[in-house]
Amino acid sequence: MRTPAQNAQLALLLEVAGTPKPGNVDRRRDLEDLRFEHFLAGTIGTQRGLEMAENGAAVGPAFERAVAGMADQRGGNTQFGALLLLVPLVRAAAEDLSPPVVESVVEGTTVADAAAFYSAFERVDVFVSEPPAEMEPLDVRRGADAIPALEERGLTLLDVLAAGVPGDDVAREWVRGFERSFTAAERLASADGTALDRSAAVFLSLLADRPDTLVAKQHGRDVAREVSRRAADLSERDAVRTDREAVESFADELVERGINPGTTADVTAAGLFVALEREVLEV
Amino acid sequence: MRTPAQNAQLALLLEVAGTPKPGNVDRRRDLEDLRFEHFLAGTIGTQRGLEMAENGAAVGPAFERAVAGMADQRGGNTQFGALLLLVPLVRAAAEDLSPPVVESVVEGTTVADAAAFYSAFERVDVFVSEPPAEMEPLDVRRGADAIPALEERGLTLLDVLAAGVPGDDVAREWVRGFERSFTAAERLASADGTALDRSAAVFLSLLADRPDTLVAKQHGRDVAREVSRRAADLSERDAVRTDREAVESFADELVERGINPGTTADVTAAGLFVALEREVLEV
Repeated sequence: MRTPAQNAQLALLLEVAGTPKPGNVDRRRDLEDLRFEHFLAGTIGTQRGLEMAENGAAVGPAFERAVAGMADQRGGNTQFGALLLLVPLVRAAAEDLSPPVVESVVEGTTVADAAAFYSAFERVDVFVSEPPAEMEPLDVRRGADAIPALEERGLTLLDVLAAGVPGDDVAREWVRGFERSFTAAERLASADGTALDRSAAVFLSLLADRPDTLVAKQHGRDVAREVSRRAADLSERDAVRTDREAVESFADELVERGINPGTTADVTAAGLFVALEREVLEV
Repeated sequence: MRTPAQNAQLALLLEVAGTPKPGNVDRRRDLEDLRFEHFLAGTIGTQRGLEMAENGAAVGPAFERAVAGMADQRGGNTQFGALLLLVPLVRAAAEDLSPPVVESVVEGTTVADAAAFYSAFERVDVFVSEPPAEMEPLDVRRGADAIPALEERGLTLLDVLAAGVPGDDVAREWVRGFERSFTAAERLASADGTALDRSAAVFLSLLADRPDTLVAKQHGRDVAREVSRRAADLSERDAVRTDREAVESFADELVERGINPGTTADVTAAGLFVALEREVLEV
C-alpha cells in the first residue's frame, strides 16, 4: 500500500513517462536543457515536502520544501506547477480525497502560506508573465522580498492564486475545486491500455479541452489555441492508440518549435495522483 | 541533499531509464509483461526498506521490506537483485561508503537476516535455478519453509549468498567486496554524456566484462558468452555514443530473443548508487 506522498511521487513519474506527450519531455523526448533524468531526480527530491503535506503540515511550507527538493538537480524547474496541485491534494488525501475537502484545504491557507509560496520562487527559475502594474509589488519574481507587501494586504495563498485566474490553469484548479484534476482521474480510469498509454491519452484530452496557459504565456493565445485544436483532432480519434505515428509527429513538431504545454502536464500529474489514490488506475 | 535511501531510489530510476540497455526494459523498450511503469512503481515501493537500511536496521529485514514494497505492482520482479546490492550499500553509506565498511556489513549478517531473505522470496516470483541435491532443503523457492533448515545449519545471509558463487554475480558482489559495483561507479564518473547515457554505456561495459549470470541460468552459458562478446565489441568502440544505431539494434534483438541480462542491470544500479552518493555523477 502506497502512502499519499508515495502516490504523488509515482504520479510525477507516470506523468513524465507518459508517451507521446506532445511538447513535453517523455520517454522518447528530451528538451534541450531539460531532460528525462531531471524529472526523475526532481521526483525523488519532492519526498520530504510531500510527506509534510501528508502529515498535515501547512500547504505553503510543505510546498516550499517539495520545491526545494525538486530543484536539487541541474535541469531547473521540472514540477513546480504539478506540486502546487499535488500538495493540497496530498494534504486532503490524509483526510478524504474529495473536492469539498481539497477546497477546504485551499480555503484554509493563510498569509504565511502565501509567504512560503513566494519563497519557493527563490528555489528555482519558474516562467511567469509580467504582472499588471498594480500587482508589481507582488510579482512572484521578487521572491521573499514581496512578503511585506503580501502581509500588508493580508493575502492568503488562495488569494494570490485567485489573482492569477484567468491566465493560469494551475491557479484555476485552486479556485474551481480541482475540477479538471478530478475529471482527469475519471478519464484515466476509463481509458484503455497501460498506465503510461492512459497518461498520454488523458494529457491529450486535457490539452484538447483548453488551450495550455503556459503555451499562451510563452507563445501567445493563437498558438495555444492552435495546439489545443490539433490535440482535439487527435484526441477525438483516440490517436494515442489508433494512430500513434500522428501523435509522435505532433510531439516532435512541438518540441522542434519549443512549445511546451506544461500546465496541461501539471493537471495530468494531479489526475494521476487522484486515480492512484482512488485505486482506479493500476500499475 | 539526497539521503542514501533517496540516492538508492534515484539509482534504480537511472538504471531503468538508461537507454539503449540491450535486453532490458529501458526508455524505448518494454518486455511483454514487464514494463517501464512497473519499474517506476517498484522504485517508489522500495522507500521504507531502504530507509530502514539507512537507519541501521539489519540487512535481512530491510531487504525484505524493500522487496515487499517493490512487489506492490503488477509486473512481478523488477528490482530484487538490485536491492540485494543496494540494501548493504545504503547501510554502509550511513557510516562510510567504502569496500571495507560494506564488507563488514555483509560479514555482520546473521541467521535471522538469512531467514528474512528467504521470506522475501514469498513476496515476488524470482527466477532461480534448480539447486544441487544437497542444497534442496535450502532451495530459496521454499521461502520461509526453508528457515528451520537454515537455522539448523546456522547459515548467515552471507553464507547463503556465498553458496551461490559462482553462478550468481549478485551473490559474487557480496563475497568480493562489491568490487564491480565500485568499478561501475568509477566508470560512471569518467564516462561522457548525460547521466542516462553513462548509465547505458556502463551497463554495456559491465556486460562486456563478464557473461550475465541471469542469461546463463535462463539460456545457457554459450548464449551468455555470445551476448557478452557482442557487448564487448560495442563497448570497445563506445557505441552508445559513436554508433547508437548498432546498440539499439542489439537491444531490439535481445528483447526479441527474450534474453534479459538482469544481473548486469543490478550491478549497474549498485554502481549508480555509489556514484550518486560520492557525488561523482551529477543529474
